[in-house]
Amino acid sequence: MTIQEPAAALANFTHQIRVGWGDCDPARIAYTGRLPWFALEAIDAWWEHNLGGDGWFQMELDRGTGTPFVHMSIDFRAPITPRHRLICEVWPCKLGTSSIGFRVNARQDDKLCFEGKFICVFITPDTFTSKPAPHDIRDIVTPLLRPE
Amino acid sequence: MTIQEPAAALANFTHQIRVGWGDCDPARIAYTGRLPWFALEAIDAWWEHNLGGDGWFQMELDRGTGTPFVHMSIDFRAPITPRHRLICEVWPCKLGTSSIGFRVNARQDDKLCFEGKFICVFITPDTFTSKPAPHDIRDIVTPLLRPE
Amino acid sequence: MTIQEPAAALANFTHQIRVGWGDCDPARIAYTGRLPWFALEAIDAWWEHNLGGDGWFQMELDRGTGTPFVHMSIDFRAPITPRHRLICEVWPCKLGTSSIGFRVNARQDDKLCFEGKFICVFITPDTFTSKPAPHDIRDIVTPLLRPE
Amino acid sequence: MTIQEPAAALANFTHQIRVGWGDCDPARIAYTGRLPWFALEAIDAWWEHNLGGDGWFQMELDRGTGTPFVHMSIDFRAPITPRHRLICEVWPCKLGTSSIGFRVNARQDDKLCFEGKFICVFITPDTFTSKPAPHDIRDIVTPLLRPE
Repeated sequence: MTIQEPAAALANFTHQIRVGWGDCDPARIAYTGRLPWFALEAIDAWWEHNLGGDGWFQMELDRGTGTPFVHMSIDFRAPITPRHRLICEVWPCKLGTSSIGFRVNARQDDKLCFEGKFICVFITPDTFTSKPAPHDIRDIVTPLLRPE
Repeated sequence: MTIQEPAAALANFTHQIRVGWGDCDPARIAYTGRLPWFALEAIDAWWEHNLGGDGWFQMELDRGTGTPFVHMSIDFRAPITPRHRLICEVWPCKLGTSSIGFRVNARQDDKLCFEGKFICVFITPDTFTSKPAPHDIRDIVTPLLRPE
Repeated sequence: MTIQEPAAALANFTHQIRVGWGDCDPARIAYTGRLPWFALEAIDAWWEHNLGGDGWFQMELDRGTGTPFVHMSIDFRAPITPRHRLICEVWPCKLGTSSIGFRVNARQDDKLCFEGKFICVFITPDTFTSKPAPHDIRDIVTPLLRPE
Repeated sequence: MTIQEPAAALANFTHQIRVGWGDCDPARIAYTGRLPWFALEAIDAWWEHNLGGDGWFQMELDRGTGTPFVHMSIDFRAPITPRHRLICEVWPCKLGTSSIGFRVNARQDDKLCFEGKFICVFITPDTFTSKPAPHDIRDIVTPLLRPE
């Protein structure tokens, strides 16, 4: 028997960013310092999409779970300009007991512009101490996991 | 004879901004320093919408016309949070020989959050000297003018 | 009798900002959206200088007083580049019962680049409701007041 | 014979950043998206310090050499707040034919907050193509190289 991978599993969440004049530097491309910001916005939007509209703001204030970053690593492949929207593909690639890893691939006009890996830990905001990923979040993330 | 004002003339352009965690400060509202940035993005998007996809980037690099700001004035009416998208209504309120004025009204959940007035001048980028508004731009802007 | 204006009264607080590549846009000048951010940083630094090291962060979290903005108005006089430090002169120009007004004049190489006026209100952070300026703050601000 | 390591070799360049209210997020620590920006500012300041006042802006516009990033990797060790200045230690750790690697260690109150590694390539701005590091820059960087 051949297990058919469902089509939905192949399509990762994408978040679209409007790159504008103010994002660009004198080299007339998006400033490097803006690109991690874009990637983080895409991850925040990924949570919002998957947690019923709750992004980091609601996770921290309403759900009592923060997910600060402990690592980011980005390879910049091609310049980004305002001539196309930036399409950020986001997927979780690792779920540990109290950590989660994300991949973000950002493309313009179908060209890979940067790819990044990000690791966050689950914490209790009041004490800023790590904790296991909440069960409801674990249940939502697990089926969305994909290899790096 | 009664001239009917077309419905389209009443509806100003709106630009939607996703307010996220990273836009907020420790008071848990969008940081004041981000709000002029939002307003400018909305004006850039207004140009893009009305100039066939050309925002400030293409205006400067492809069309040879820059529009730097000489004035901004903003009244902050209500806090902005990530709980709603920020809807920025933009319209040109004045077109001088070599200047253009914009109004930006930003709302969340139908509530006015800030309202601003912005004045830009048309310039030749190479010399950074003012010039009359190009004819094609004047023709596009004139029918969109509305009172402050 | 001639009233001698004390020397100290003539010298307003200045805050120096390093304008860098990442602050500039494709026109090769500091992006307009960054300039209110600079002005706000200068006002935050003014508080820090005058409240014994307490800027907005400590005012809100340690002293229980927030000062959100209700108005800003900026005239942009000359382009700003990374070729000089930006010297932001800050002074309070009005102290109402529960509000405070600031002026910020920003210069590069002795040339006025922008001048702005800002109005904030004193609030209780927990309720986001206005309150009279605390006495200790009023005592510190009053002798520093200067006309617009 | 004991080779004495010169004292100068031990002291890397440091760049001080004022972390303010506007850099912080609702968790009341500096927003992760701001930290790469801080690191880049520190590298820009490193160039300025070592190239006679020329940062990225002057390198690109006056010297005809750009140094876009191809990689960044950051480990976040401790939260950053406005309660201390952020001291960013910067040093070059690798100089290839047409690339340069930097390390940035950022501390507050003597505590390591983040450490990052960054790789840039030397390019000709007009064509955005890589080129060997200019001789004068190579001569300046070489004696400053230190292991990762």
